[in-house]
Amino acid sequence: MADSEAVPDHLDGAPEAYHTLLDQYRRVSNLGSAQGVLSWDQQVTMPEGGTPARSKQLSTLSGLHQELLTSDEIADSLDELEDEDLSPTQAAVVREIDREYRRAERVPQTLVEEISETTSEALPAWEQARAEDDFSQFAPYLEKLVELKREYAEHIDPDRDAYEVLFEEYEPYLGLDTAEDVLQRLRDELVPLLDDIRESDADLASPFEGGEYPEDVQEDLSRDILDDLGYDWEHGRLDTSSHPFTSGNQFDSRITTRFDESDPLGALMATVHEFGHAFYSLGLPREEFGTPLGESRDLTVHESQSRLWENHVGRTEAFWEHNAERVRDAFDGLDDVSAREFYEAANRVYEDNLIRVEADELTYHMHIVVRFEIERDLIAGDLAVEDVPEVWNDKYEEYLGIRPDSDAEGCLQDIHWSHGNFGYFPTYSLGSVLAAQLDATVREEVDEFDAKVRDGDFEDLRTWLRENVHQHGARYTTPELVEEATGEAFTADYFVDYLTAKFADLYDLDGY
Amino acid sequence: MADSEAVPDHLDGAPEAYHTLLDQYRRVSNLGSAQGVLSWDQQVTMPEGGTPARSKQLSTLSGLHQELLTSDEIADSLDELEDEDLSPTQAAVVREIDREYRRAERVPQTLVEEISETTSEALPAWEQARAEDDFSQFAPYLEKLVELKREYAEHIDPDRDAYEVLFEEYEPYLGLDTAEDVLQRLRDELVPLLDDIRESDADLASPFEGGEYPEDVQEDLSRDILDDLGYDWEHGRLDTSSHPFTSGNQFDSRITTRFDESDPLGALMATVHEFGHAFYSLGLPREEFGTPLGESRDLTVHESQSRLWENHVGRTEAFWEHNAERVRDAFDGLDDVSAREFYEAANRVYEDNLIRVEADELTYHMHIVVRFEIERDLIAGDLAVEDVPEVWNDKYEEYLGIRPDSDAEGCLQDIHWSHGNFGYFPTYSLGSVLAAQLDATVREEVDEFDAKVRDGDFEDLRTWLRENVHQHGARYTTPELVEEATGEAFTADYFVDYLTAKFADLYDLDGY
Repeated sequence: MADSEAVPDHLDGAPEAYHTLLDQYRRVSNLGSAQGVLSWDQQVTMPEGGTPARSKQLSTLSGLHQELLTSDEIADSLDELEDEDLSPTQAAVVREIDREYRRAERVPQTLVEEISETTSEALPAWEQARAEDDFSQFAPYLEKLVELKREYAEHIDPDRDAYEVLFEEYEPYLGLDTAEDVLQRLRDELVPLLDDIRESDADLASPFEGGEYPEDVQEDLSRDILDDLGYDWEHGRLDTSSHPFTSGNQFDSRITTRFDESDPLGALMATVHEFGHAFYSLGLPREEFGTPLGESRDLTVHESQSRLWENHVGRTEAFWEHNAERVRDAFDGLDDVSAREFYEAANRVYEDNLIRVEADELTYHMHIVVRFEIERDLIAGDLAVEDVPEVWNDKYEEYLGIRPDSDAEGCLQDIHWSHGNFGYFPTYSLGSVLAAQLDATVREEVDEFDAKVRDGDFEDLRTWLRENVHQHGARYTTPELVEEATGEAFTADYFVDYLTAKFADLYDLDGY
Repeated sequence: MADSEAVPDHLDGAPEAYHTLLDQYRRVSNLGSAQGVLSWDQQVTMPEGGTPARSKQLSTLSGLHQELLTSDEIADSLDELEDEDLSPTQAAVVREIDREYRRAERVPQTLVEEISETTSEALPAWEQARAEDDFSQFAPYLEKLVELKREYAEHIDPDRDAYEVLFEEYEPYLGLDTAEDVLQRLRDELVPLLDDIRESDADLASPFEGGEYPEDVQEDLSRDILDDLGYDWEHGRLDTSSHPFTSGNQFDSRITTRFDESDPLGALMATVHEFGHAFYSLGLPREEFGTPLGESRDLTVHESQSRLWENHVGRTEAFWEHNAERVRDAFDGLDDVSAREFYEAANRVYEDNLIRVEADELTYHMHIVVRFEIERDLIAGDLAVEDVPEVWNDKYEEYLGIRPDSDAEGCLQDIHWSHGNFGYFPTYSLGSVLAAQLDATVREEVDEFDAKVRDGDFEDLRTWLRENVHQHGARYTTPELVEEATGEAFTADYFVDYLTAKFADLYDLDGY
C-alpha cells in the first residue's frame, strides 16, 4: 500500500484552503466510487428483488454526494483560492473541482435524489421491457427521466440549450459544436464509402457463421486475451452482464462482457474494448486516488482508450496473426481459417446489423447519429416518448437502410437512457476519432508497432498510453491533453483517413 | 414494489419531529446498508488489490454515517419528542434511534473513520496471516484495533467496563451479566456431560470419513436444501467466502458458505445456519425498510434464528430422514448409510476439533468461552496481543483438552477481530440458548412438528417465526421479544435440557 501513502508534490506548501478543499473533495470522490460499486453490484450480482433497497441506498448516496460537493468547505475554499498564486497542477485541480461544484450547487438536492431513485427503478424496468420486447413497460420511466434531466439542465443554465448542458456532463471541454461537426462530417464522408462498399464485389470471409461457440470456451478465450493484453487480475475481474461495461478506479477496475454462442467475435471485441477502459482506470496515479489528478479525463478520452485497443489493436491484421492459432484451437470447425480471414470477419461491414454494440467501425457512427438526434429532440421537447420506437425505426431505415422488427432490437437495445444518460452517445464517436489520432502518434513514436502486435508484445503501447494519457488524470482539459499527447489539436482527419484506407483495401475500392 | 410504498400506521398523525427524525434516520440506515454491500463485495467479489480504495470508501461512509446519526435533525427531534405523547410503536422507534444516537454522539468522528479504515486494512492482513499461518502479520492490526475499540468504549461511558460497553453494541438489552451467567452455567453443566460422553462406549457413525465430495456437487446440494427450506432466490444468492456469513436486508439477503472436499457436513450445516440469518432478514417488514421496525433485533435474536434452523431443524433425526436419500444420491460411496447414521454424524462430538465453526453443539460453547475470556482481557489491558497465540492454545488445552499446532487453526481462525468486533462472540451462545427456548415453544404450538420436518414441510415453522419474531423488527427489546414469543423470560433451562436429553440418547448415557 506504499503507493497510496506517498504524499504528492502539489500538496507541499499549498495554501491551507487547498488542503481543506482536497480533504472534502476526497470524501466526495470516495462517495462517488462507492456509488460505482453499488451500481456494479446492481448490474452484475444483485438478486432481482433487491431493487427497492438499492434504489434507496443509491438515492441517499447521491444526495450526500451533492451535499458534500456543495458544502461550505468546498465553496469557501474555492473562494479563498481565487486570489492565491497556484502552481499549474494546483490550478488544474481547482479548475476541475470548481467546475463540478458550479454544476452541482445549481441543482436542488431533492432533484438529485429523485433522479437517482428513478434510475434505480428504471434499470430493471428496461431489462424487463427489453426481455419482453415491450417498450410500453419502459416508456413511463423514460418519460420521467427526460423530464427530470431537462429540469436538471435548466437549473445549471436556464439560458442555454438543455441538451448542450447535459452533453457537457460527459465531455466538458470539446463543446457540443465539435460533436455536431464530427457527426456531420462522419455522415458526409462515411455514407459514400458505405455506398461503395455495398456495391463492391469483394466477399469478405465470415468463418464463424453457422458454428457453435460454447460460452465457457469463449470465457476462457477472453481471459487468455486479457492476460495477453496485460490486464492486471489482482486489480480486476471479468463477469457477464446484459450490456458490457467497465467500472472502477486505479485499484479495482472490473470488466463485464456477454456471450453469444453463435458468434464469438462480439464477446471478444467487447472484452478488448472494455480492457481499454479498465487499463486507463488502472493507469491513473494511485497516490492521487480521490483527487481530480487520480480521475479520468471524462468520456471522450475514456472512449478513445477502449476504441484504440478494440479497433487499432483488436481489429488489425497483426492482432489476428497473433491470435489465429489460439482461436482455431479453442473452437471446433475453424481449422482451415487463415489470419487474414479472421481479420476480414472482424472488419466485415454488416449492412443488416441493427445492434450498435455489434456494429462494424463504419456503420457504428450511423447508430450514434440516430441516438443523438432522438435524445436531442426528446430533451428539446420536440419528440414525445411514445413516438420513440417509430422515429427510431424510421431513422434506421433512412441512415442505415434497415428497419428493426422489434423494440428489443431497436430503441430498447442500449442501457444508457435507463441511467438517465442523455448526451452520452456522441462521446462514442468522439472517442473513435481521438483513438485514431492517438494511434497515428503511437505508430510514429513506437518502432515496429505492427510487428509487436503480431508478437503479442503490447509493452510499448501500454507504456506510451501510461505516459501520454493515463498518468495525467484530469490535469489537462480534453483539448490540452490531445495537444500534449499528439502535438496537434483535436481533429477527425486521422479517423477518416484511417477508415477510408482500411476499408478501401478490404473491399478493393478504387478512387480512395 | 407496492410493499415498500405502503405508508405504515405509526406515521399517521405523528408529531412533525417524528417525521423529521425518521427522514433523517432512513438516510442513516441507507448508508449503513450501503456499507453492508461494500463489505459483502470486499469479502466475496472484490479483487485483492482493491483494498486501498475500498478502505477509503468505507471510511468515508462510516464517517458520514456518524455525522448523520449525530446531526442536529436527529438531536433536536429526539429532544422535542421527549415531551410528546407517543404510541407504543412510536415510543419503540424513538427508543431505538435514541440509543444509537447516544452511543454515536459520544464518539469523535475521526475515531470512527480511523476504526473503519483500520478494519478495511486488517481484513486482508488477517486473510494473509491465516493463509501463511503467521500471527505476527496480523498482530499489529489487532493491537491497533484493541486500542481503538477501547478508546471507543471510553468515549461512550468512561465509568463502565469497556468490554461491557462493547458487548452492548451486539446485544444491547440482555446485559453482560446475563452473558457471563449463561457461559458460566454452560461450562458447569456441559463439562460433566462432555466427560461422560468421552467415557461412553457408544460409537456414533461417521459415514463421510475418507470419502471425496466434489465442490460442485456440494454446491448443488446446498442449493437444493436452500430451495427446500424456502430460501427466496429472487431476494438472495449463494457464494463462497473464507468465512460463511450472511449480509443484507428484507429485499436482498445473501448467504456465503465454504466447501471442504473431504467433508460435506460442514458446508451443509453452514448453509442451513446462514439460511436462518437470511430468512430472518427477509422476514423484516418491507414497508419499514430504513426504520428500526424494519431492522433486526440485534445479534442474540439473529443468532437464535440461525441456530434454530441449524440445530433444531438441521441436526434433527427428522431432517436426516427427509434428506438421507438426497445425500446418498449426490455422492459416491454412501449407498448403505441410514438416516440415523447421517443424524449421528451431524451430532458426533468431535473431541479433537479445533475449529469453532466446525464444532458440535456441545464443545461449541467452550470455543466461545476461550474467545470471551481472551477478548475481555485484551480490552481490559490484562493481556498483550503478542501473548494471544499462547494463551489461546493454553485455554484450548484447559477447556477442550486439545492444543492447536498452528495459529491458522488457533487464534487466526475467526474473522471477527479483524472487523474490530470485540464483544460479539458471547452472542453466539446467547443465540443458541434462545434458539432452544423458541424451539420449545414452536414444538408446543405447531402440530406434528417432527413429522413435518420429515416431510420437508417447513411452512408452519416459517409462519411461526415470521409472526412471532421477524415481523416485529426492533420494536421490542430482547427480553420483551422473548416474552412475547415464548410467554416466558429469557432462560437457559431449555437449552441445557435439550442438549442433555439429545446427547444422553445419542451416547447412551445413564443418569440424565
